[in-house]
Amino acid sequence: MSEKPKAVILISGGLDSATTLAIAQEQGYECYALSMDYGQRHRVELKAAHWVAESFGVAEHKVINVGLDGLGGSALTDSTIPVPEQLEEGIPSTYVPARNTIFLSLALGWAEVIGAKDLFIGVTAVDYSGYPDCREEFIRAFEEVANLGTKAGVEGRAFQIHTPLVKLSKADIIQQGIRLGVDYGLTVSCYQADNEGRACGVCDSCRFRRQGFKEAGVVDPTRYKK
Amino acid sequence: MSEKPKAVILISGGLDSATTLAIAQEQGYECYALSMDYGQRHRVELKAAHWVAESFGVAEHKVINVGLDGLGGSALTDSTIPVPEQLEEGIPSTYVPARNTIFLSLALGWAEVIGAKDLFIGVTAVDYSGYPDCREEFIRAFEEVANLGTKAGVEGRAFQIHTPLVKLSKADIIQQGIRLGVDYGLTVSCYQADNEGRACGVCDSCRFRRQGFKEAGVVDPTRYKK
Repeated sequence: MSEKPKAVILISGGLDSATTLAIAQEQGYECYALSMDYGQRHRVELKAAHWVAESFGVAEHKVINVGLDGLGGSALTDSTIPVPEQLEEGIPSTYVPARNTIFLSLALGWAEVIGAKDLFIGVTAVDYSGYPDCREEFIRAFEEVANLGTKAGVEGRAFQIHTPLVKLSKADIIQQGIRLGVDYGLTVSCYQADNEGRACGVCDSCRFRRQGFKEAGVVDPTRYKK
Repeated sequence: MSEKPKAVILISGGLDSATTLAIAQEQGYECYALSMDYGQRHRVELKAAHWVAESFGVAEHKVINVGLDGLGGSALTDSTIPVPEQLEEGIPSTYVPARNTIFLSLALGWAEVIGAKDLFIGVTAVDYSGYPDCREEFIRAFEEVANLGTKAGVEGRAFQIHTPLVKLSKADIIQQGIRLGVDYGLTVSCYQADNEGRACGVCDSCRFRRQGFKEAGVVDPTRYKK
């Protein structure tokens, strides 16, 4: 008999979303983890998401298929666009058009079905790649959409989108996660990890992660290819 | 050599979205039609969407897979929930949680990839089932999300979401469509049409449609099962 409120947590298999899940659990939510199979090149993400969900004993982990690879336009879904090894000027080619809008929409749909009013997403606007859909103002605009565009919202159940990491540096995130028992060895952040989850060490995501462990003074459990 | 601006038009295979496509084309857009394969029970919708797209000679018709049937919670995706034959009080069981939010998100992703800034959706808030995500205020909130949550939006390309039907009655929609040459015999509105596109005649959607043709004074080309 659970009387905990339910929450939907978007988990990618990476460091940020694993920490977000840990925070939601600490805050007393019954956690429903949601991942997307969107044709990402780094397929091991989904394995890592499964490892993470399992390690936290979530109520349910669901993987939704969404054919973003059919839309193209991103180095993360289109194998003809190389993953950059240098931080690019402006918004990089690893940006997936409207990704967080799409993911939040699906999380919202599931939340409505299971009767959750809380959604968690591990966006951060500190040590990040400059994606527009990681910013607080975007999240608040989406919250408005959630409340206007659903039966639950119209009937008075106000959705809240939690972004517990948005103002934290990568080092702060790691320190929080360690305190909450996150096993970062299970997580995969690399945009071009191999099937075993070994990281390239050179993409944006690897560099932010490596630097984060260094600044946090925590041993980096990441397995690198080289 | 096309110098027309591009637009993404959501088409379901139904009467409203076919009319919306006709209007976008008349307004001078190069039309990119987008449909969703979301595990809907009424699979013939996708065939009808193809017939409609073809009849208008769109630049491209794309069908995106999105696993909403895995989320459940609607008579339209869950075969254990019956499609009602009477208009229900409040928001009916045919409501699909967050459907238009999800569809608009995907349309937004595609628009960003192809360089379109105009999206068309055939929502109507007159002869409709009371779905919250068909209302003008929802659409305007989503427009805000589109402009905050995308690279194109942040870089100054303002997205506009067109809802040419929102204030029209079903009869008005049909009259506009007839004027623009829509072949409504190709469209399927029924929530439980058979594989040939023959309609049940009793669900909400059938009743609004039948009444619309009657009020418009136009011969109803719908093929009914009985």
